[in-house]
Amino acid sequence: MVFKKITLIGTSTESFDEAVDDAVDRAEATLQNVKWIEVEEMGVEVASVEDREYQAEVEVAFELED
Amino acid sequence: MVFKKITLIGTSTESFDEAVDDAVDRAEATLQNVKWIEVEEMGVEVASVEDREYQAEVEVAFELED
Amino acid sequence: MVFKKITLIGTSTESFDEAVDDAVDRAEATLQNVKWIEVEEMGVEVASVEDREYQAEVEVAFELED
Amino acid sequence: MVFKKITLIGTSTESFDEAVDDAVDRAEATLQNVKWIEVEEMGVEVASVEDREYQAEVEVAFELED
Amino acid sequence: MVFKKITLIGTSTESFDEAVDDAVDRAEATLQNVKWIEVEEMGVEVASVEDREYQAEVEVAFELED
Amino acid sequence: MVFKKITLIGTSTESFDEAVDDAVDRAEATLQNVKWIEVEEMGVEVASVEDREYQAEVEVAFELED
Amino acid sequence: MVFKKITLIGTSTESFDEAVDDAVDRAEATLQNVKWIEVEEMGVEVASVEDREYQAEVEVAFELED
Amino acid sequence: MVFKKITLIGTSTESFDEAVDDAVDRAEATLQNVKWIEVEEMGVEVASVEDREYQAEVEVAFELED
Amino acid sequence: MVFKKITLIGTSTESFDEAVDDAVDRAEATLQNVKWIEVEEMGVEVASVEDREYQAEVEVAFELED
Amino acid sequence: MVFKKITLIGTSTESFDEAVDDAVDRAEATLQNVKWIEVEEMGVEVASVEDREYQAEVEVAFELED
Amino acid sequence: MVFKKITLIGTSTESFDEAVDDAVDRAEATLQNVKWIEVEEMGVEVASVEDREYQAEVEVAFELED
Amino acid sequence: MVFKKITLIGTSTESFDEAVDDAVDRAEATLQNVKWIEVEEMGVEVASVEDREYQAEVEVAFELED
Repeated sequence: MVFKKITLIGTSTESFDEAVDDAVDRAEATLQNVKWIEVEEMGVEVASVEDREYQAEVEVAFELED
Repeated sequence: MVFKKITLIGTSTESFDEAVDDAVDRAEATLQNVKWIEVEEMGVEVASVEDREYQAEVEVAFELED
Repeated sequence: MVFKKITLIGTSTESFDEAVDDAVDRAEATLQNVKWIEVEEMGVEVASVEDREYQAEVEVAFELED
Repeated sequence: MVFKKITLIGTSTESFDEAVDDAVDRAEATLQNVKWIEVEEMGVEVASVEDREYQAEVEVAFELED
Repeated sequence: MVFKKITLIGTSTESFDEAVDDAVDRAEATLQNVKWIEVEEMGVEVASVEDREYQAEVEVAFELED
Repeated sequence: MVFKKITLIGTSTESFDEAVDDAVDRAEATLQNVKWIEVEEMGVEVASVEDREYQAEVEVAFELED
Repeated sequence: MVFKKITLIGTSTESFDEAVDDAVDRAEATLQNVKWIEVEEMGVEVASVEDREYQAEVEVAFELED
Repeated sequence: MVFKKITLIGTSTESFDEAVDDAVDRAEATLQNVKWIEVEEMGVEVASVEDREYQAEVEVAFELED
Repeated sequence: MVFKKITLIGTSTESFDEAVDDAVDRAEATLQNVKWIEVEEMGVEVASVEDREYQAEVEVAFELED
Repeated sequence: MVFKKITLIGTSTESFDEAVDDAVDRAEATLQNVKWIEVEEMGVEVASVEDREYQAEVEVAFELED
Repeated sequence: MVFKKITLIGTSTESFDEAVDDAVDRAEATLQNVKWIEVEEMGVEVASVEDREYQAEVEVAFELED
Repeated sequence: MVFKKITLIGTSTESFDEAVDDAVDRAEATLQNVKWIEVEEMGVEVASVEDREYQAEVEVAFELED
């Protein structure tokens, strides 16, 4: 059994919880067997967005098929 | 005056705020003189739970009695 | 073009999201050209407040005027 | 010449050496030109397995074809 | 559900695998509901032992009872 | 042979040396077989004390009895 | 909006700037919507090359399509 | 004698050396007694600029006047 | 309530305690509402001083006025 | 009493334990009074060897003679 | 086969590339079998030099003879 | 101009200041052109000494002769 980890950055105009969920949603939509997520960084983008954009960088671990 | 720190991991099916509160609640229920909490890690468990379980690892500092 | 970063700690009795917003609000009230924010640390103060105070240490990056 | 690095977690019921080899085996079975591996984390899963499962998170570097 | 983590250092005159197992054995002998272990540091003591003593510092996570 | 490590924060109104000694004294008063101490963090509390309070966070390693 | 980050190692016989550019060139040749790059490590390979090979490990962030 | 450190991010369309110089130039134009600079992070902005913008985050140490 | 942190480096020809105090003295002489200090680095300058100069880099946290 | 630490990288075609021992053997063959060893990094070289070469970077501490 | 690593700081009045080369040149002039170099820190000295001195701290790995 | 850094651990039965001085004294007794020292770790040995032995691990930077 081998797992692989990839790094995604989810975004939300509402909250960090939603930013994390955004990344997890994306992972689960495209990957089989997502197992766990680790939050690596959190930040807020101000310059290039209308108001504030909450960002959460996460590592997503999923099991590779044999 | 000496403080001690212990490491707890709180969980919640709703949010990271609740996961932290979960750990702080537990600390305050069993320890006297809790002073402050530091968040060390945050993650989401997916594999072994029904939906998503938000987890927050925290260090809890409390004052030891003489 | 040169950016400067300063370190602020926002607080809230409600949530970490509000603690981060507290710091960003302060930064935007006193600084021109705030660009982005990085969350450095999160914690909860218990000892010196009535209930719980959520704290978020952030680095605020803003563009210096020429 | 450009290398790419991916993150795998190998597992073994026997030892950390085997857990690392498990990840390297997988990498070599699916990637051309594996060059080196760096061990990032080691751990033991107890809760969801029969006995103990040794886990090794590694970064695998391989050369990209032009 | 709240987990607690404690730090143990296992030792062995044979190998790092045995040093980790030494710490896990101790944890399982005295704690209910051990869930997972993270290896933090590895070293070899030479000065105060006859030959070589392999040491592994691990964090042990276990579930607290309600 | 298994060691355990706990985290204490010693305090002193005089110096960091005394703050470390404060934590070591406490450890030796309540634990058998203290082996070594590692200094993790040092700081000075100003707000909630009369003058300055030197603080030293240390990890204390001691041997567990069989 | 979700970003993904991958890790590349660019190389150059001339300079670190060129080694970073080498990785960015590769990223832009194969990925849509490259947004930013973070330099993680720099090194020089001597043993297996004729003279010196400057290497730069970078993380490349790009926006995923919906 | 007390030093203060501030954090600047210099930019250049040419190279990391110029990005560092950009920050040092700015520091020396506005601060007396700049003593040394430490490079903290390097990156490349791609999304919001025409070509590539090399960025260098540095800490600038300068001596405070009595 | 928002706190700000700045980085100072105190110096002393006598001891690290005095070097930290040097930085705290300076902070309290120029800032209102200093709350706490965290020691970041300690070193000894030999080359450019007569004997030895103990240096302590600290982060000083103070409360901003509304 | 003063200790010195040096950094060695031991290698083995068999296991990480042997790679660490390889470095410790070398240290003990050329240094008096080796006291302890700390494992810093572990990796596997694949490209320039026949099969796999396990590598362990260790810091070796030994007591200097007066 | 055992490697040893030493730490050098190269300097240049021109660029970081030259500062790294300065350290590599020195290593190759005095050591046999230099294998690779890792860049650890980069900085600029301003106070004690005429203009600016670019500094690069590197770890140099070389193979020890049997 | 090239500097080299070595790692020493000074000891004292009195204080951390003396432990650092112990290492600096040793460095200056055997090395030409010692420039600066960085404190890396501090700890207290209890098990193998009569009372307490304060230890300070430092990096010593000195200029190499041409």
